[in-house]
Amino acid sequence: MEESNKRNEISQLGKYQLINKLREQFTNHHASTAVSFDDDASVVDFGNKRAVFSSKLFLEHIHFDLTYFPLRHLGYKCTSIVISDILGMNALQTHLTVNLAVSNRFSVEALEELMLGIRTCCEHYEVDLVKLDVTSSAVGLAISMSGMGEVSEQDTVLRKGTKENELICVSGDFAAAYTGLLLLQREKQIFEATQNSQPDFEGYEYLLQRQLKPEPRVDVIADLKKNGIVPTTLAVVSEGLAASLLQICDLSSTGCTIFEDKLPIDTLTFDTLKSLKIVATMAALNGGEDYELLFTIRQDDYEKIKKIDDISVIGYMTEKNAGHHLISNDNCQIPLQAQGFASTKNE
Amino acid sequence: MEESNKRNEISQLGKYQLINKLREQFTNHHASTAVSFDDDASVVDFGNKRAVFSSKLFLEHIHFDLTYFPLRHLGYKCTSIVISDILGMNALQTHLTVNLAVSNRFSVEALEELMLGIRTCCEHYEVDLVKLDVTSSAVGLAISMSGMGEVSEQDTVLRKGTKENELICVSGDFAAAYTGLLLLQREKQIFEATQNSQPDFEGYEYLLQRQLKPEPRVDVIADLKKNGIVPTTLAVVSEGLAASLLQICDLSSTGCTIFEDKLPIDTLTFDTLKSLKIVATMAALNGGEDYELLFTIRQDDYEKIKKIDDISVIGYMTEKNAGHHLISNDNCQIPLQAQGFASTKNE
Repeated sequence: MEESNKRNEISQLGKYQLINKLREQFTNHHASTAVSFDDDASVVDFGNKRAVFSSKLFLEHIHFDLTYFPLRHLGYKCTSIVISDILGMNALQTHLTVNLAVSNRFSVEALEELMLGIRTCCEHYEVDLVKLDVTSSAVGLAISMSGMGEVSEQDTVLRKGTKENELICVSGDFAAAYTGLLLLQREKQIFEATQNSQPDFEGYEYLLQRQLKPEPRVDVIADLKKNGIVPTTLAVVSEGLAASLLQICDLSSTGCTIFEDKLPIDTLTFDTLKSLKIVATMAALNGGEDYELLFTIRQDDYEKIKKIDDISVIGYMTEKNAGHHLISNDNCQIPLQAQGFASTKNE
Repeated sequence: MEESNKRNEISQLGKYQLINKLREQFTNHHASTAVSFDDDASVVDFGNKRAVFSSKLFLEHIHFDLTYFPLRHLGYKCTSIVISDILGMNALQTHLTVNLAVSNRFSVEALEELMLGIRTCCEHYEVDLVKLDVTSSAVGLAISMSGMGEVSEQDTVLRKGTKENELICVSGDFAAAYTGLLLLQREKQIFEATQNSQPDFEGYEYLLQRQLKPEPRVDVIADLKKNGIVPTTLAVVSEGLAASLLQICDLSSTGCTIFEDKLPIDTLTFDTLKSLKIVATMAALNGGEDYELLFTIRQDDYEKIKKIDDISVIGYMTEKNAGHHLISNDNCQIPLQAQGFASTKNE
């Protein structure tokens, strides 16, 4: 039924290219539609207030592997990711809906474990669950979540809005979650080969925690506010720093230059990646699942940003035609590239 | 990982029992949380306005079968269902987010067909698509949608709020979508057995249209308003009239009596079900996918409701201890029952 004469493979397009193609003939009908599509979340104008609105779909075998992902952590992580999307608009999430689809492999107790993780995250970040639905699934577990928050017009920060010479900043460090995933996948392979290995993650707790229990950087948003900094653009890095940065540049019509030696990578991440023969810089740019904030600020705010812990200035915006570059440690200029659409799986 | 010592099967619980169990320890943090959980959608208070907010998850092999469901119709139907949920709060949907997960069985053209259906429905009901995401799927197609609308506090109508002696009304007719599904499934079986049959649906167009392209009853909401009727409760019937009615009774602490001879069933539906040896009344009560409105009104509004086309008064509310009954055509009193959790599938 889904066949037609002409067939273009989804894998031939980048993710954003695909989404742009699919949305291109949609038109808006409501003046209240303040922000749509290009950002972490959507914004609906309610007169004096604005609703921020986002949704996510998580599928077993694609977005998570239950052989090493405890359900409680999974519930926490999915919720955390939705909160991060709302945070990417400079807004705090207030409400959450959850739709689950489960096969009969799952018991009621299993679902309660999942909900416990969701609840723990909701309580920690003061989010109200307002809808829960459960249906059956043919294979595995599917989790769909939508989040709502509130923001004033002047506080809304988009992925569009930076200019030449503004500074590019990030919170935290990168590639840790990706490295944690590699460790978990390696132990799974060993377990499948030997059937009796006991995984030993001692010393790697930080990497596992970044993979299994990421936290939305609500603290960074609060620090920026406290120090009187309003970012000119803001995005949550979920699919790699390079992808998020290139999208900001694309929407803002700028080029960018970032420096390899400024990319924040934790020592444990760096050393573990080295032992796995992976270049840490590449993992930091494309690894994904960091859920750190990427934002731009005016040069004038440089003295202020230095006062905030856990923020790195990694480069600056350039004019559009200058292109998008990484200056490597040996002073080479390397073109920045984002990865394509996450490989569609074979059926 | 999802195993524990004690294992209760999801299939042992009814759907609402399961959802109530899973949500029971969640607490709210926001005064803006006006309506949560028990209704078609959730309501968030934005001072002078309220946002209505709902979400749905549709999975291939569970909620739709692409062997007989054209993608364009599927896009239309899913959108229509989300609009219906918002309508169930007496609100009109204004915004939509869409998350798709697709395996590589699907081409870009296939996704464009799906989006065309979504777009057609969005244009017809003036809904703005504000977010679209596409990820990969291990098996088949998953569609997650969330919708937002706007309603004033005084216009919000819940599933809770009816009293003894109020009248039970429904829009349209019932069991047509279910009968359409049975016809499609029968033709699929014949096709699978013979590999060369040409389906012949002549004369059954109404049943197929109700299954493949349901419309949200925006017209009924407008008619009620025009005639000055504010329903005391309101719900969209998606999983059978009996289930929706019992939930209204449960939330409102009432009993109910409805009459078999008042249930609106189209002649074609009735005759087709008869030829399939299915009791039409049972299909009307439990078939599902009607997307008609079920609502209650004060006795005083009876003269007004008679003026509106396509509305049937099917019974009345009683005091809680009187129970929930159907009075059959031969004047027997039959207890009303809702079906349990839609069978979880084997993996």
